Amino acid sequence: MTAQANKPYVIGIDMGGTNTVFGIVDARGIVITSDSIKTRKHSNINDYIDELHTELTRLMRSVDAEDKIYGIGIGAPNANFFTGMIEDGVNLPWPTPVPFAQLVSDKFGIPVAITNDANAAAIGEMTYGAARGLKDFIMITLGTGVGSGIVVNGQVLYGHDGFAGELGHIIVKRSNGRLCGCGRTGCLETYCSATGVACTAREFLEIRANEPSLLRDIQIEDITSKDVYDAAMAGDQLAKDVFEYTGTILGEALADFTVFSAPEAFILFGGLAKSGDLLMKPLVRAMEKNMLSIWKNKVKVLQSELKEADAAILGASALGWEAKFK
Amino acid sequence: MTAQANKPYVIGIDMGGTNTVFGIVDARGIVITSDSIKTRKHSNINDYIDELHTELTRLMRSVDAEDKIYGIGIGAPNANFFTGMIEDGVNLPWPTPVPFAQLVSDKFGIPVAITNDANAAAIGEMTYGAARGLKDFIMITLGTGVGSGIVVNGQVLYGHDGFAGELGHIIVKRSNGRLCGCGRTGCLETYCSATGVACTAREFLEIRANEPSLLRDIQIEDITSKDVYDAAMAGDQLAKDVFEYTGTILGEALADFTVFSAPEAFILFGGLAKSGDLLMKPLVRAMEKNMLSIWKNKVKVLQSELKEADAAILGASALGWEAKFK
Repeated sequence: MTAQANKPYVIGIDMGGTNTVFGIVDARGIVITSDSIKTRKHSNINDYIDELHTELTRLMRSVDAEDKIYGIGIGAPNANFFTGMIEDGVNLPWPTPVPFAQLVSDKFGIPVAITNDANAAAIGEMTYGAARGLKDFIMITLGTGVGSGIVVNGQVLYGHDGFAGELGHIIVKRSNGRLCGCGRTGCLETYCSATGVACTAREFLEIRANEPSLLRDIQIEDITSKDVYDAAMAGDQLAKDVFEYTGTILGEALADFTVFSAPEAFILFGGLAKSGDLLMKPLVRAMEKNMLSIWKNKVKVLQSELKEADAAILGASALGWEAKFK
Repeated sequence: MTAQANKPYVIGIDMGGTNTVFGIVDARGIVITSDSIKTRKHSNINDYIDELHTELTRLMRSVDAEDKIYGIGIGAPNANFFTGMIEDGVNLPWPTPVPFAQLVSDKFGIPVAITNDANAAAIGEMTYGAARGLKDFIMITLGTGVGSGIVVNGQVLYGHDGFAGELGHIIVKRSNGRLCGCGRTGCLETYCSATGVACTAREFLEIRANEPSLLRDIQIEDITSKDVYDAAMAGDQLAKDVFEYTGTILGEALADFTVFSAPEAFILFGGLAKSGDLLMKPLVRAMEKNMLSIWKNKVKVLQSELKEADAAILGASALGWEAKFK
């Protein structure tokens, strides 16, 4: 308690494929100051960490927070909570695996905890957002892919090796499924991510070649999930059907996830999660239709309550309160 | 420690749809004495508990274990660890829900813990069997249905309401799936249980009407999974194909379960689990083929190490060490 009183702040770092955002956060979840750097600017990881250190030192000084940082929490793709390693950096310019938590801790002299971005989001939601007070919930992040963070009895489910909770890679189509970045076919994320929505739109435009659609004004390969959303909101039937299709597949999957960990709620995060009834209506309809009777009408589907701009930093920072020197 | 030294035994009770088996077990997992009664003999639950008490008192006296029982553990269908209730007794002659743990505790004056049979099996395996030393594993029971007990970080995953781990009700066929006892279609247990194996055999016999098979010597509605096993072991191609089909579906499902909780191992229990290579070869082949790359060739599939006759009592009894007065 004394340590926490003397060190009332944590640092949150969210490493994305393009930008690394970071900030200083207090115990009530206020992002006091934040900034970002380009993730891929340096080909040597030590140069990247040096730049992070320079920028964060500047931020700490600006709010008089030097020597007041309890811990650093990091959300990064394929990061392992147990080992502190980034194991596989598909979009990163340095060789992996790399002991990222240790390198940052050595540089800053502050304890560091790291996990993947979806788990960081779950911890953030539990600490500051829609999951406050929930001990059993599943965070689903709908972005370029589909990520998940599973919380059981108040703890993130890491599994035997630290990589549990890859629900974007549940197989939802056993035959003729879409090719996934993981090399397999039919994964949930090939249908229910932003990328999946755009892909479904392209498929529908081809199959229903004679049907007019606002989406035909866009070069087919340039269509984004935002375009589909805009068209659907303007009343375009084909675009609305894309959301119906997406929500149905996601709802069926959530019913299956329920038999696994019996969560009190699912919490949806990311751009697609903000599609409102377009996504939620078919999602909840399919989830309830496919739900085992003991859970029918009992499992909530909530939206993230974290501000988009702060969410990544907040999620990572919440993990900072758990950081310990190795 | 003193309490446990003075009370070196636990009672395990496994309530099945037909028989209730029970025994007195020591801390090393030796079933010192055991017996059984008919589950459905009494239409009043108090009469059933009275008979249990009479029989167990006799057993305790026979081994001088009165006043030496640390706790009673019970495995029962649809039993809830959190509430101590049997919530839904499909095959039971008394009205449910019923506060079974409390009733037994009141009668015996001994603390009682209760859970469903698959969770009890998982605890038994962790305490005395193939899962000793494992903190993250999934128990799959292949019986009339398919049950599961999920262990995460050394604890059974109960979920928000106590009913987590109903993996027999994951949907494996989204269209034209078999009707399940739960009222939905396409559940894993309609394919990979003993009942499912017999059903697959009947389907194959119809579809492949011109193919000779040893199974044609049996009345089609009387075929059991044991008949299919015997035919397959005698070289019958159709029967072998039934196991190929069953193992493939189960293997695909285990690959999906892995992305959820990243277990170190699956442990298979029940009659079907003893089918040897007939089931295991297609199962492991399908599991590895469908496994996300980070887990390929890393997740073990083990057989239960508990003696069939003792397993139900042992699994339930292991929970007795966790029992506390409410």
